[in-house]
Amino acid sequence: MAGSVFGTMFKISTWGESHGKGIGVVVDGCPAGIPLCEEDIQVYLNRRRPGQNRYTTARSEADAVEIMSGVFEGKTTGTPISLIVLNKDQRSRDYGSISELYRPGHADYPYDMKYGFRDYRGGGRSSGRETIGRVAAGAIAMKMLSELGITVKAYVSAIGPVSIDRSRMDLSLTEESPLRMPDLDATERAQQYLEECMRALDSSGGVVECVAEHLPAGLGEPVFDKLDANLARAVMSIGAVKAVEIGDGTLVSSRRGSQNNDGYTTDAEGKPVKASNHSGGILGGISDGAPLFLRASFKPTASIAQVQTMLGRDGKCHDESIHGRHDPLIVTRAVVVVEAMTALTIADHLLMAMSSKMENIKKVYGADNGTDQ
Amino acid sequence: MAGSVFGTMFKISTWGESHGKGIGVVVDGCPAGIPLCEEDIQVYLNRRRPGQNRYTTARSEADAVEIMSGVFEGKTTGTPISLIVLNKDQRSRDYGSISELYRPGHADYPYDMKYGFRDYRGGGRSSGRETIGRVAAGAIAMKMLSELGITVKAYVSAIGPVSIDRSRMDLSLTEESPLRMPDLDATERAQQYLEECMRALDSSGGVVECVAEHLPAGLGEPVFDKLDANLARAVMSIGAVKAVEIGDGTLVSSRRGSQNNDGYTTDAEGKPVKASNHSGGILGGISDGAPLFLRASFKPTASIAQVQTMLGRDGKCHDESIHGRHDPLIVTRAVVVVEAMTALTIADHLLMAMSSKMENIKKVYGADNGTDQ
Amino acid sequence: MAGSVFGTMFKISTWGESHGKGIGVVVDGCPAGIPLCEEDIQVYLNRRRPGQNRYTTARSEADAVEIMSGVFEGKTTGTPISLIVLNKDQRSRDYGSISELYRPGHADYPYDMKYGFRDYRGGGRSSGRETIGRVAAGAIAMKMLSELGITVKAYVSAIGPVSIDRSRMDLSLTEESPLRMPDLDATERAQQYLEECMRALDSSGGVVECVAEHLPAGLGEPVFDKLDANLARAVMSIGAVKAVEIGDGTLVSSRRGSQNNDGYTTDAEGKPVKASNHSGGILGGISDGAPLFLRASFKPTASIAQVQTMLGRDGKCHDESIHGRHDPLIVTRAVVVVEAMTALTIADHLLMAMSSKMENIKKVYGADNGTDQ
Amino acid sequence: MAGSVFGTMFKISTWGESHGKGIGVVVDGCPAGIPLCEEDIQVYLNRRRPGQNRYTTARSEADAVEIMSGVFEGKTTGTPISLIVLNKDQRSRDYGSISELYRPGHADYPYDMKYGFRDYRGGGRSSGRETIGRVAAGAIAMKMLSELGITVKAYVSAIGPVSIDRSRMDLSLTEESPLRMPDLDATERAQQYLEECMRALDSSGGVVECVAEHLPAGLGEPVFDKLDANLARAVMSIGAVKAVEIGDGTLVSSRRGSQNNDGYTTDAEGKPVKASNHSGGILGGISDGAPLFLRASFKPTASIAQVQTMLGRDGKCHDESIHGRHDPLIVTRAVVVVEAMTALTIADHLLMAMSSKMENIKKVYGADNGTDQ
Repeated sequence: MAGSVFGTMFKISTWGESHGKGIGVVVDGCPAGIPLCEEDIQVYLNRRRPGQNRYTTARSEADAVEIMSGVFEGKTTGTPISLIVLNKDQRSRDYGSISELYRPGHADYPYDMKYGFRDYRGGGRSSGRETIGRVAAGAIAMKMLSELGITVKAYVSAIGPVSIDRSRMDLSLTEESPLRMPDLDATERAQQYLEECMRALDSSGGVVECVAEHLPAGLGEPVFDKLDANLARAVMSIGAVKAVEIGDGTLVSSRRGSQNNDGYTTDAEGKPVKASNHSGGILGGISDGAPLFLRASFKPTASIAQVQTMLGRDGKCHDESIHGRHDPLIVTRAVVVVEAMTALTIADHLLMAMSSKMENIKKVYGADNGTDQ
Repeated sequence: MAGSVFGTMFKISTWGESHGKGIGVVVDGCPAGIPLCEEDIQVYLNRRRPGQNRYTTARSEADAVEIMSGVFEGKTTGTPISLIVLNKDQRSRDYGSISELYRPGHADYPYDMKYGFRDYRGGGRSSGRETIGRVAAGAIAMKMLSELGITVKAYVSAIGPVSIDRSRMDLSLTEESPLRMPDLDATERAQQYLEECMRALDSSGGVVECVAEHLPAGLGEPVFDKLDANLARAVMSIGAVKAVEIGDGTLVSSRRGSQNNDGYTTDAEGKPVKASNHSGGILGGISDGAPLFLRASFKPTASIAQVQTMLGRDGKCHDESIHGRHDPLIVTRAVVVVEAMTALTIADHLLMAMSSKMENIKKVYGADNGTDQ
Repeated sequence: MAGSVFGTMFKISTWGESHGKGIGVVVDGCPAGIPLCEEDIQVYLNRRRPGQNRYTTARSEADAVEIMSGVFEGKTTGTPISLIVLNKDQRSRDYGSISELYRPGHADYPYDMKYGFRDYRGGGRSSGRETIGRVAAGAIAMKMLSELGITVKAYVSAIGPVSIDRSRMDLSLTEESPLRMPDLDATERAQQYLEECMRALDSSGGVVECVAEHLPAGLGEPVFDKLDANLARAVMSIGAVKAVEIGDGTLVSSRRGSQNNDGYTTDAEGKPVKASNHSGGILGGISDGAPLFLRASFKPTASIAQVQTMLGRDGKCHDESIHGRHDPLIVTRAVVVVEAMTALTIADHLLMAMSSKMENIKKVYGADNGTDQ
Repeated sequence: MAGSVFGTMFKISTWGESHGKGIGVVVDGCPAGIPLCEEDIQVYLNRRRPGQNRYTTARSEADAVEIMSGVFEGKTTGTPISLIVLNKDQRSRDYGSISELYRPGHADYPYDMKYGFRDYRGGGRSSGRETIGRVAAGAIAMKMLSELGITVKAYVSAIGPVSIDRSRMDLSLTEESPLRMPDLDATERAQQYLEECMRALDSSGGVVECVAEHLPAGLGEPVFDKLDANLARAVMSIGAVKAVEIGDGTLVSSRRGSQNNDGYTTDAEGKPVKASNHSGGILGGISDGAPLFLRASFKPTASIAQVQTMLGRDGKCHDESIHGRHDPLIVTRAVVVVEAMTALTIADHLLMAMSSKMENIKKVYGADNGTDQ
């Protein structure tokens, strides 16, 4: 069964393994007439690239993207846009025992059960390197959204026990922080925590939050293709995510209705405004015009250098450690992945919602249908 | 855009409004040869029916299901199964101001923005009554899963500030508790809390958890149709859900890898077993054979009788209260809805995963392909 | 696997068997704001209803449609529209041998191979009665198309060896002809031919043609969702259709390019017009603004009263005749089914094509995105 | 809207333009464990390659395919298989007037109407070169089918007025004929006809037929995903196809039921066999175990060197001829494309039909579900 295809109207199909020839994505359904060049995509890929600092894997990859189709004279043509990133650093090495062991926290065991065998080199298709396709496609979605003034921005809000202080949070600082935390003080404390984890040959979990602004109200389709439902799928599909929250998320369960409902109030000019945004910009699965807010909880990197008890293909327990250098945390590089999945979902919903009412259809096809040709 | 269709192989299409003629669902893709009668479905519908106790709306509905097609001589035929529940209690009443106001926490405003107008009677399509279609279809999925020995059971783990005590939790008590909490002591405390909420004309949020057991390993499709991604979508699409967690959920973000990885150990008979199940039975988006665990956080019922400041279609603020009797909490009746969405997702993935390997295909088509007819 | 769902944006899900409780369809994705009442649908159903004349089965069915959801205050709401037609005349009778025999030209054998058994009453799901769902949904598509001035009209162009004379053809006569041939002279000759067939306990094949006018240019998606490709699927999915042609169809294979290309010429007012329409209004799979033309070849009714040699479930040959009265031809009642499938396909493509270019998207979402609510 | 994606379970996504960097396809949903190497695909691509003889364009392309992902240690892994063919011969030339004219019989006008502009170099995405993606993916489908003993073979049955003699037809001769006609005498006459066309700066239409053998009975999903319906879509989506016929196709319309029904008879050993195969192996949209037969009518190449009257973007008529060397016929190179689309459709239906009955599902998941891990 195909599982690497995402979206209904703005549809992407990703491919590639960690240690194969490359990673890529085909974007089908992108409207014609959007200015697009490789640099538009590269800036996003650079944000997820390894080797950015000491908390990311030392694998050396330029991750240079090439547009293979779908763009002509600097604009999208409406036909499929194929993007490719070749793998440079696919050092041939001895995978030896790894191919015979199921690493804890990894997809090794389920892949073997599902397919009968697996590409064990660097995790194959289940590697985090798979997200290159998401980010590259997400950059195109982002470009489309920007034509309508919509913005999508993610950041790290917590690493292990260290959380940002919301009173001090400043999104303009996100990219300045080596950990992408929009609070430089928290960044410092998180760095100390990470050093400690690394010394203990351990890794840390974390939280990524994402805000999308200037969405039109009316995006999302009742009842199964709700905007929040599709965002949940999109974000949960990122490796290592174990929870997705919309708006106030898990907090709502302990609240009363009078605390949780977003009532209205009047602003300085007497205009009605939402007095709060507990809903995170989505009501009944449909955007309400307020900023969209979501949160994703990432588990710690599963690959750690400590000795762990693993199951072998031989059906026996083995005490082994996983060699190689791995990121001690996922969230910093995942920020741009969360942005990408959010942008892809919103882009898809924008196209889907165009046919919500006959009025919209008449706007597009107007009065000049049919010719006598 | 169609949004009321769910599933790829085991596909359901729901319809109906709170105050229309009825609610229904068409299940297409259910395999042939499964024994099915109306009673199999009715038992699930009875668990979500209103009027079960003083915490559920007094609307009087038998919610009797009728199978219109797809079953012959007591077995599914492989063709679409159409299920209908007629609305009995659709009291004509004066909706007056409600049709001109956007209720806080409800989908009124987004629906108007999206469609240009809305069926304002009882929330129309955004009513919780929509879940009848889910539960009816879910009952069929459950029946299919039971043929393979798979079970799916949900329960309430928290209501407002009251949580169950996991050391005392006993799933066999769930249906004995009027609140579906598998801990009768917590049930009592939650009842007291709800009485307090009701006196204050208020409502309460809560948490539903769900466990599925005896799934084969290998369900879930990388990378976007991961089992957890599709479960997240399925459960988040239930009205009022604001967070979905898999396994240990949000807790993983503050953990270290050594704490979160599920290693192996040896049981009494020397057989290797997972030493823990933080992953909730899913690794890399694919079932690993361990029990699947998920959690959904529900917001408090949005309809409360207190006066609230609402936005009107006239663009002005209005202080109004919502008349009518409403459930003070959603979770108790939602238990069976969470089970249904979980069962539907697993059923769909079971059918999808059949073609994972050539070996499976040969099992089905064997050696006797093609005849000389 | 679900196979009773059609369409991407304008999506329909049909259900029901010949001798079950009824037949129905759920239309999901119909834009909001289209005026719709039961009579709009009934007029189409009446055209496919049995008992219209001596060439159609005597089964007595009113085929009265009921709208169960999706319409409020006389307009579509954008949510699923559920339509139901109850079966009245499901005479309980002895199916005896039929349940043990595979009728020639019928789906009996493949159904048994596929599902392990079948609903043998009147053909079950493979009965022509299944087309009620198509026609009912098609009526809604037609209503949407009419809002844009698009028309879809089908007619019978041949019955057995009798073809209409194109120089005399007049589409305004179609519904006056008891056979729906837009040529009353051909109608008469076809009637004589049919009497002869009936006397010989035999049936006749025929041809249905369909013209859609005033389509905007630009409908159809390269490369697999071409307008003609999806029309071919839609029309071939009608039982008994064995060939689908677009424009000049099979004739093009014996032509030269210079004969087949549609060049341009200048009309009386000096305006360029297509000098011919061999392409049938579709070039490269996309509508070119000229009238869309397609043709479907129907096989003769498979049920004939002559003795035939059938295969039995016992693996032996049996000489048997099929009892019951059956239509001696399919095409006359199929005219409205071809119209329905054509309208559904065009409607779906209209919604799909809205997002072809960024310019259209800006027309819908304009400059007023995002509010401060 | 995405239109370059085909298939539900065995899903392909093609990309690329005639004069872009390359052409490719991502195959998602191919089962794991099928032996696959580049040569398996190359043999099919070689059959559609230009420059094979004087009737095919002189464009010099090796069309060498590269497998970028989804294969490990010589076997498919179950994850997406990305295939790329780089364009070598993309001579930069002056497209001058072509970019301002709508060529008769080409998609130029509809593309401009749809997207606002187009990649006019060599037809861009509407070029026949797009079929490389189909053929490459089809080769993988073919490989899968061969594991079950299913074969798919196409050939040219007519070119212009020259048809093969069915009494002399021998499929083992197809690839020996430079025109892929399985009748060497007809080949010679067709060659003479083509020389005449070429001298007249003209082109010729033709017919391709395709036979698939050893399919299991039971493939095809009622009512819209019938096997013949999806084949019709698949084949009609090939550029230049204007008619698709299944079994006896258009001939059935002039027949009587007694002539068209496939009755049974007894073979030499007393075993019941179909006495005929007018149905082409499909009844009620489902394979009946007999050989599947389909026919596609191709229009003549639209690009001819004669002067034609074209519409310009300036809204005026222009008398112009199209420069460059083009194939005088399409069918010979299209044979492998028809095979590919047929194989892809059958492969998809094989995977879909696995879940037709509960019995099949138990064959795959057996009794050993769920482990205690």
